Amino acid sequence: MAVDPEEATVTERPYDYSDLSALFVSCTLTPSPAPSNTEALMADSIEIMRRQGVATELVRAVDLDIAPGVQPDMSDQFPGDEWPQLMAKVRAADIVVLGSPIWLGEKSSVCTRVVERLYAHSSETNDRGQYLYYGKVAGVVVTGNEDGYKHVGMNLTYSMQHLGFTVPPQSDTAWVGEIGPGPSYADDGSGGPESSFTQQTLTFMTWNLMHMAALLKRSDGIPAHGTSTTAWQDGARFDHPRGDAL
Amino acid sequence: MAVDPEEATVTERPYDYSDLSALFVSCTLTPSPAPSNTEALMADSIEIMRRQGVATELVRAVDLDIAPGVQPDMSDQFPGDEWPQLMAKVRAADIVVLGSPIWLGEKSSVCTRVVERLYAHSSETNDRGQYLYYGKVAGVVVTGNEDGYKHVGMNLTYSMQHLGFTVPPQSDTAWVGEIGPGPSYADDGSGGPESSFTQQTLTFMTWNLMHMAALLKRSDGIPAHGTSTTAWQDGARFDHPRGDAL
Amino acid sequence: MAVDPEEATVTERPYDYSDLSALFVSCTLTPSPAPSNTEALMADSIEIMRRQGVATELVRAVDLDIAPGVQPDMSDQFPGDEWPQLMAKVRAADIVVLGSPIWLGEKSSVCTRVVERLYAHSSETNDRGQYLYYGKVAGVVVTGNEDGYKHVGMNLTYSMQHLGFTVPPQSDTAWVGEIGPGPSYADDGSGGPESSFTQQTLTFMTWNLMHMAALLKRSDGIPAHGTSTTAWQDGARFDHPRGDAL
Amino acid sequence: MAVDPEEATVTERPYDYSDLSALFVSCTLTPSPAPSNTEALMADSIEIMRRQGVATELVRAVDLDIAPGVQPDMSDQFPGDEWPQLMAKVRAADIVVLGSPIWLGEKSSVCTRVVERLYAHSSETNDRGQYLYYGKVAGVVVTGNEDGYKHVGMNLTYSMQHLGFTVPPQSDTAWVGEIGPGPSYADDGSGGPESSFTQQTLTFMTWNLMHMAALLKRSDGIPAHGTSTTAWQDGARFDHPRGDAL
Repeated sequence: MAVDPEEATVTERPYDYSDLSALFVSCTLTPSPAPSNTEALMADSIEIMRRQGVATELVRAVDLDIAPGVQPDMSDQFPGDEWPQLMAKVRAADIVVLGSPIWLGEKSSVCTRVVERLYAHSSETNDRGQYLYYGKVAGVVVTGNEDGYKHVGMNLTYSMQHLGFTVPPQSDTAWVGEIGPGPSYADDGSGGPESSFTQQTLTFMTWNLMHMAALLKRSDGIPAHGTSTTAWQDGARFDHPRGDAL
Repeated sequence: MAVDPEEATVTERPYDYSDLSALFVSCTLTPSPAPSNTEALMADSIEIMRRQGVATELVRAVDLDIAPGVQPDMSDQFPGDEWPQLMAKVRAADIVVLGSPIWLGEKSSVCTRVVERLYAHSSETNDRGQYLYYGKVAGVVVTGNEDGYKHVGMNLTYSMQHLGFTVPPQSDTAWVGEIGPGPSYADDGSGGPESSFTQQTLTFMTWNLMHMAALLKRSDGIPAHGTSTTAWQDGARFDHPRGDAL
Repeated sequence: MAVDPEEATVTERPYDYSDLSALFVSCTLTPSPAPSNTEALMADSIEIMRRQGVATELVRAVDLDIAPGVQPDMSDQFPGDEWPQLMAKVRAADIVVLGSPIWLGEKSSVCTRVVERLYAHSSETNDRGQYLYYGKVAGVVVTGNEDGYKHVGMNLTYSMQHLGFTVPPQSDTAWVGEIGPGPSYADDGSGGPESSFTQQTLTFMTWNLMHMAALLKRSDGIPAHGTSTTAWQDGARFDHPRGDAL
Repeated sequence: MAVDPEEATVTERPYDYSDLSALFVSCTLTPSPAPSNTEALMADSIEIMRRQGVATELVRAVDLDIAPGVQPDMSDQFPGDEWPQLMAKVRAADIVVLGSPIWLGEKSSVCTRVVERLYAHSSETNDRGQYLYYGKVAGVVVTGNEDGYKHVGMNLTYSMQHLGFTVPPQSDTAWVGEIGPGPSYADDGSGGPESSFTQQTLTFMTWNLMHMAALLKRSDGIPAHGTSTTAWQDGARFDHPRGDAL
C-alpha cells in the first residue's frame, strides 16, 4: 500500500507521471524462466513507478540473441541479431534502468554487451541534432554476493551520461552481501529485501529518475544550443573562445 | 568573439543565465603561481560561461591547506584547516566543475582529498531534507600526457552524483596526448588547444551544465517527495512496496 | 631478425624457454576471418615468444559459442557451449595473455565473458590444493582508437591475480590513438606499429611473462604452505594470529 | 601460536625467510596516536611475517608531511617534504604492502599521494637498467564500512605492477562491512576480526608475498634481458619483430 501523501512529511505532492515510460534492462546471466536476483530488486523500483502511473517494461537481455559489434546494424554478420527489438524499446523510453549482477567485482558480460550496442547508435541524432539519448534519464540497479556495486555503478552511469542520458542524483541502488561467499539477494535469509539501506537508495533512485524524466519532458528536453552535434558540424561554436576560427 | 546567435543553426536561443554561479576547483598538484595545464583547459569553459553572464570562480585547491579526514570540521586535529573556505564556495555555487590532471592513470591526490571533504558533508541536508548538494550540477575537466581521462571522469562524476549533484549529458571533457610520454596540454606544440574533439566536448559540457543548472533553478530544484532523507528518517516510505511495515 | 645477444648491453642470456607454452586469447568483437586490430598487436608478442621456442597459440573467443554463466559446466542450459575447448587450452598453458579492444573506455563484452568463465573454475584446485591457476602468469594487450587502456589493464590484471595468476612487472601493453575518433591500430597511417612506446612495453611485457613463467616452472610453482585452499579447509591456519582457535 | 608444521596438511615446509624485509605503508586519514582500522588488519599480516623472521616495519603516511608532486625531489617547492624518509624505506624493502581505507568507494587521498610519489621515481633504474622496483613484490590491505575493496585493490595492484613490482596471486585482502553505514573493522561487534574470509585472504596474501619475494631474491631478481630500460635506450630490441630497424 502506498504511503498516504497526507501523511508524508514533505510538502510537495508527486507530479502526474502517467505520461512517462521506463525500460528496465536486466543483464542477469540466467536465461528465463529461472529467477534472477537482480530482477528481484528491480521489481521494487518497477512497483514504485507503476503506482505513479509510469508505463514500465522489463526485458531480460540474455533471452535475446544479441550480436557482438559496435555498428547499429550487425545483421550482415549476425543474421539473427535480436538487438533491434531491444533498441526499439530504448528509443521509446523516457527512463532506462540497467540492472546487473556482479561477478569478480565487475558487471556481467551481458551488461557489457548491452552498453556496446547502445554505444553503436551514438552517431544518431534526434531532430535537433543532439545525440539520440538526450532527454532520457538513466539509473542502475546492482546485486551481488559481495563487494563491487559502486565499481559497477560508476562505470554504467558514466557510460550512460557519455551517450547522452542525464544522471540524476543518487541514481543507482544495490544490494550486496557480507564480504566473501554467501547468499544472493533473493535467497532465503539473505537479508537483502529487508535492508533499509537498499530500500532507501532504491526509493530515492526511483523518484529521482521520475522527477528528472518529468522535468526534462516538461521542458522539451535539453536545449540544443551548445549541445547539437549537427550544429557543431555545420560550424556553430557556441562561444568557444577559439571557435570563431571557422 | 561569441558566435552570433543569429548565425547559429539551432532554433533555440540561450536562456538568461546571469543568475547562475559556477565554481571551478582545480586539483593540479602544482602550487601557484606556476601555470597548470588543467586550468588552461578549464579556462575555456569559464570563458563560455562568462559570456553568458554566469558568475565564475576558479580555486586552486593545492594552494589551500586542506586537512585529511571525513568529518565536516577537522579543526580539532588540524587547526589550520582551510577546507571551510572552499566549502563555502561550493555551498554558494549552482555548478561545480572538478579539474584534475592524470598521474598513473588516476586523478590527483589533491582531487581525492577534495572529494573526501565534499563527502564529509553528506549528512547535511537542505531545508527540505535532501542531501546538501541536491539541485547543483557537476562537471569534470581532465588533462594528461596520455590515457586515463575516462577512468578519472567515471570516478568523479559518480562521486558527485552519489553526493547529490545532477550529472547532465556529456558533462566531462578532456585532453590527453598520444600514448606514452609527451607534452602536456599547455606545452608548445602539444596540439591540445587545437583539438577539435576537446573543443567540442568542452563546449557541450559547458552548455549542458548551464542548461541543467538553469532547469533545476527554475524548477526550484528536485522535488523532495521520494528524495528527502529527513522524511525517510521520519518514516515516509514513498510507495516502496515493503515500506509500509513502519 | 633477433638482436644478437652479443650486442645486447645486458649481461644475462635468455633462459631456454622451449618448454613454456603461451595461450593468447583474443577478445575482439569481430568474427573470423575479418582482421582484428588487437590481434595485430598480439602478433608481435607471439613472435618474440616464438623466437625463444615458446609454444604459442592464439584463439579468437568470438568465434566460439561461449555460454554465459559462472558454473564450470553450462551445458545443461546451453548444450552447444564451446567454453570447454578454450578452458582445456588455459589448463595447458604456462602463460595466458588476454587481448581486448576498448569500447567506451571499457574492455569488450567478449572479454568480460571469458573472465566470467575463467572465474567459474575458481573452486577447482591443483594437486596441492591451490587454486587452479597458481603457477601460471598473466598478461594483457589492449588496443583502441583512444583512451582507456590502463582502465582495461587494471581490471584484467586484477581479475587474473585474483584467480591465482601471477602478474609480473609491466605485464600489460597497449596502443591507443589520439583523443577522439581516429584510425585503429592496423589502419594505414595510424602510427600504431611504429609507436616506440608500444614496442617497448610489448617487449618488456613479453619478456617479463617468459621470465616469470620460467621462474615459477623451475621452482615447481608457488609453495603450497600458506596458499593451499584445501589445507585451509582442513584446518591449517599458517600462523594467522587468531587462527589457532580451530 | 603458530600452527605446528607437523600438523599442516601440506608437504612443503616454510623457507627460511629471515633475510626478507617488508614495509607496510598505512594510508589511513587519521594521524597518530589515534587507532586506525586498516592498521588493525595489517597487524595480522605483520604478525605472520614476524613469525617467519621477516623484518617488518609499519609507517603511517599521514604522520609525515608528504609534498604533492611527481618529481623525486620536491624540496624546492616544499622545503619540509618528508617523502624521502619513506622512500628510503621503500628502497630497502623486498615487500611493500599498501593499506588504505575506503571513502566513497575509493582509496584515501593519502594513498593516492603515496602512489604519486612512488611514481615520481619511475625513471630511476637499478644497476642492470630495470625500473627501480623490479625484484620487489607488492600487496594491498583494504578496510571500509562497506563496498569497494576490489575497486581499490585493482587500482593499487595495477599501479604497483606498472611501476615494476611483481604482484603474486591473491595479493590483496580486505574487510568491509555490510552494505550501508555501519561499524568499522576494529569497532566492537563489527565481526571483522572474526571474518574467516578475511583471515584466509590475509593469510594467503601474506604467504604469497613471502614466497614470491624469496623466489625473486634467490633468483637475483628478474633477468634484465628484455626488461632493461637502459638497454632499450641503448638500442637493444630483444627480438621485437620490427625492432631491428636500429
